Amino acid sequence: MEHRAKSKVALPVWEFSGRDKKNQTDYVVAEEPLEIRLRAGNEEKILALTMRTPGADFDLTLGFLFCEGIISDLSTVRSISYCIRKDLGEEQRYNSLLVILNQSQLPEIGMFERHFMTSSACGVCGRVAVDLWVAKKKENRSFPFNWKIPLDILYKLPEEFQAKQRLFKITGGLHAAAIFDLKGNLIEIKEDVGRHNAMDKIVGYALREGLLPLDQHIVMVSGRASYELLQKAYMAGLRFFCSVSAPSSLALLVAQKFSITLVGFLRQKRFNVYHGIERIA
Amino acid sequence: MEHRAKSKVALPVWEFSGRDKKNQTDYVVAEEPLEIRLRAGNEEKILALTMRTPGADFDLTLGFLFCEGIISDLSTVRSISYCIRKDLGEEQRYNSLLVILNQSQLPEIGMFERHFMTSSACGVCGRVAVDLWVAKKKENRSFPFNWKIPLDILYKLPEEFQAKQRLFKITGGLHAAAIFDLKGNLIEIKEDVGRHNAMDKIVGYALREGLLPLDQHIVMVSGRASYELLQKAYMAGLRFFCSVSAPSSLALLVAQKFSITLVGFLRQKRFNVYHGIERIA
Repeated sequence: MEHRAKSKVALPVWEFSGRDKKNQTDYVVAEEPLEIRLRAGNEEKILALTMRTPGADFDLTLGFLFCEGIISDLSTVRSISYCIRKDLGEEQRYNSLLVILNQSQLPEIGMFERHFMTSSACGVCGRVAVDLWVAKKKENRSFPFNWKIPLDILYKLPEEFQAKQRLFKITGGLHAAAIFDLKGNLIEIKEDVGRHNAMDKIVGYALREGLLPLDQHIVMVSGRASYELLQKAYMAGLRFFCSVSAPSSLALLVAQKFSITLVGFLRQKRFNVYHGIERIA
Repeated sequence: MEHRAKSKVALPVWEFSGRDKKNQTDYVVAEEPLEIRLRAGNEEKILALTMRTPGADFDLTLGFLFCEGIISDLSTVRSISYCIRKDLGEEQRYNSLLVILNQSQLPEIGMFERHFMTSSACGVCGRVAVDLWVAKKKENRSFPFNWKIPLDILYKLPEEFQAKQRLFKITGGLHAAAIFDLKGNLIEIKEDVGRHNAMDKIVGYALREGLLPLDQHIVMVSGRASYELLQKAYMAGLRFFCSVSAPSSLALLVAQKFSITLVGFLRQKRFNVYHGIERIA
């Protein structure tokens, strides 16, 4: 059963405005470490440690495992549970998750642990990185190309998105990722201090709900589109990725290589298309 | 000699505004992996791989090593150089740095590699994290408390900061960290796709210029103040940390524990003080 953790913390804060100051109660977003442990048969190891906003921890974990190519569907996972240490205080008790796999040995995760470092004796590069990491994804990815998004639907997304950023409104301090259907209806939104965590939470949600691959959906993220996010988008089967801010060069490279429409600066009735304009009506 | 890499990439982009669209040349921020290799005596290992914006790579590396407690001053470092692979193209050639230390063995970096995971059998928590990581910092940190920042100087910082975000103006896609003196003069600003990298670059710059510890300076960062940034601020000896946006709960915990004044939402003649108001005049 998933723990309903505190995702924000109330505290006294001094607000200055010009020459005035007043003492108020404000909220900051909760940031706590989450340790992800993986077990199969008699083997167990710490897979990752991420700083995250508590909440949707199971989705975060499932999405992370999926995006790293460690699990390909839910049937691989026997259970997810918190490792609860009773000697720790309430707030610290739910920071470790154990995932037990339905197999007798841990998967080969050397590639994950060192990412794309392993194969390069000295010197790494973006293109090599993209090539290697694609190897993680085994299935054949040739989606039919049978839809376009009308302008009006695109312009509708930011409003919907902002309206649902619940924690952001209170704390001003976190990222969000949302799934929309092709009509622009918001399916789910997740928030987190880390943009990659928000994306993992969305992918984990989609996995749990049987929505993967997301080739009939749109994902929108707050902030910038980095390499890491496009990598996750690719793993989730996305063809249409929007961000509120700018993409990076390597994010664009992934979009180009895997034919993902990449929209940036989507706000106030404008946006830029960096790749895949043919998917906009 | 440091390579002067491309920090932005020009490309054609479709700009949509309402019903209009036009094809323009735009810039996206460069994002490339940087591998940091560490050598001492006959031992060599890959220490880290980070996605970064090329430029100030040596400062990034020095700052990273310093903030992780691996080096304490410049005398520890014999050399920094690129591992250049001639078989790779120009843009990919400068993504690996080798740091050679003035010692015969690699330092104990198990703690770094797994961060604070090592000591917790199952379950990690913010407080434990803070405690453990403080152990990295050996010197006695009891700075005299002998200055306050007037309001007018604080209000001046965001203007100076924005005026100097050179790459951000062109690409809209990256973070910055800047050092100011106590009179509000900007000493240096560094930009990067990763906020932690921008902070490492600033700390590396300070190390190289003999400015550490930064207890007579102010640092300001774009975006939010996370745990990771406050951790680096502490390592650099900072007492006054400002961000354009919100802090997280764990960032605040570090500020409280180490008596760092934490200012958030510093923009347009207003800000919030989350900790250490006594340092504001």
